[in-house]
Amino acid sequence: MSKGFDDLLSKVASCSRKKVSVAVAQDGPVLEAIEVARTRGIADAILVGDLKKIQPIAEELKIDLSNYEVIDIEDPVEAARKAVSLVHDGTADMYMKGLINTKDFLKSVLDKEVGLRTGKPLSHVCVFEFEGQQKLYFLSDVAFIPYPTLEDKKAIIENTVEIVHACGIDCPKVAPLAAVEVVNPKMPVTVEADELTKMCERGEITGCIVDGPLSLDLAIDPEAAKHKGAEGRKIVGDADVLLFPDIHAGNITYKALTHLCKCKNGNILTGTKAPVILTSRSDSTEVKVNSLALGAVVAEAMNK
Amino acid sequence: MSKGFDDLLSKVASCSRKKVSVAVAQDGPVLEAIEVARTRGIADAILVGDLKKIQPIAEELKIDLSNYEVIDIEDPVEAARKAVSLVHDGTADMYMKGLINTKDFLKSVLDKEVGLRTGKPLSHVCVFEFEGQQKLYFLSDVAFIPYPTLEDKKAIIENTVEIVHACGIDCPKVAPLAAVEVVNPKMPVTVEADELTKMCERGEITGCIVDGPLSLDLAIDPEAAKHKGAEGRKIVGDADVLLFPDIHAGNITYKALTHLCKCKNGNILTGTKAPVILTSRSDSTEVKVNSLALGAVVAEAMNK
Repeated sequence: MSKGFDDLLSKVASCSRKKVSVAVAQDGPVLEAIEVARTRGIADAILVGDLKKIQPIAEELKIDLSNYEVIDIEDPVEAARKAVSLVHDGTADMYMKGLINTKDFLKSVLDKEVGLRTGKPLSHVCVFEFEGQQKLYFLSDVAFIPYPTLEDKKAIIENTVEIVHACGIDCPKVAPLAAVEVVNPKMPVTVEADELTKMCERGEITGCIVDGPLSLDLAIDPEAAKHKGAEGRKIVGDADVLLFPDIHAGNITYKALTHLCKCKNGNILTGTKAPVILTSRSDSTEVKVNSLALGAVVAEAMNK
Repeated sequence: MSKGFDDLLSKVASCSRKKVSVAVAQDGPVLEAIEVARTRGIADAILVGDLKKIQPIAEELKIDLSNYEVIDIEDPVEAARKAVSLVHDGTADMYMKGLINTKDFLKSVLDKEVGLRTGKPLSHVCVFEFEGQQKLYFLSDVAFIPYPTLEDKKAIIENTVEIVHACGIDCPKVAPLAAVEVVNPKMPVTVEADELTKMCERGEITGCIVDGPLSLDLAIDPEAAKHKGAEGRKIVGDADVLLFPDIHAGNITYKALTHLCKCKNGNILTGTKAPVILTSRSDSTEVKVNSLALGAVVAEAMNK
């Protein structure tokens, strides 16, 4: 079981060495993270991009490009198409965004010929470790699906649970969050949370335990859960997956945790044939490296 | 300007000594907070409740009841009605919940004869201090109004700004939060945030600067704001007030900050004739004392 990012990183060591294909690699912060990931044994990289722009960045960061396979393509859209095709055909195990706008990057991910479509909806999984807690939390969706329908939420749970399984947790506890822990017809979010719980009970969602609606304290704080009444509940402060009502709730919480609480985190896009790493420019190198480690573990599980 | 809870507490020292009326005072954690508030000079208290239940609790907590005015009323609803009437008639400056359920407590707050109605909607304000930051943040609404309409949001801003002014910040910056910082017709929250911004520009909301929609990082992190483009914005990582899209986003963020990040906080109910303190059983003594200090400062400003 992954107890935190340190454990996740040591789990990577037991995986076969992975390869990440970088779309439009002329990006300083991305190259920095790629170099750390390589030296720490997390993954090798194929850098697809404009070589005459990659070279000076590598020089400045003291990165020896002879440690990498570089494919010189000037046009960003073409570079992304080449980079994603390397994952599509199995040459690389995961796909990472470089200096390309998100829209064009996602177009390459969804490309019908060379992309990573599975038919499932794509969703974003953010993995957190909180100070003083020896476990990982999986938050979704904080960045990708604006107003998930019930069907979308089922897909988000399935996508996320696949990532949790890859991290070594066999039957994660999934908490569909709301402001309250009781079903209230005036709050559609609570009705949907209850419906997801029943779908899991009926075997329509598998590989996890779903119990909602839950307020965040009852989902993650065993003391609060016991205090406020945990009778008949399947989650008593021990949730692994936190499912958000919508992107606003998810994104604001995510940014509170990263900007105000400086929690360790990493994140990937899932629902795809292979892990996709789509970190933001403002993410630290540590976050990018954590995301690559997460991608490596997920790629290992997918290839089994 | 209040730079944090320590400054807020020292601000209390310059106020005239306040009095809090406690509804159904036979509540250990509340009495503990009341005693700390008294000994630290934040407020005296009138304890309204069942004396034969108050006495053993006071004894166990080594609280000398001769330091308090006690009004012996056994029935909780009657006790609350008496306690709120003391604030209504000016005998006390603020009103606090003891061992009574929230519904009955709020009934007393809204009582047409002896309550604290103003005609304005009631809203909840939560005040946070984050580690390493020398300022207070005012979050609303995380606990009271489930799905605020545009009009409700205007009222929430007005209620909250009154509290911020009381804390010594003359023209607070109010950030209506969303997952994104651009108006998107497919995300009604962003349209409303833009409308609130315009209402402020037209002078329909006063005493503050409103700028939204904003993602949380752009609202509170100057570096992120500069990085992502702050041109033409009135808030560049320097928001004082964080307005949430709905209770789910607000409540989940609030609980992440309190349960995962252990941030200092205090909170009051406002929109009333006098501050109302409605802390939760799971709040620590520190939170309750911070809330009383906040109430004292707000009561001082209201009486001016």
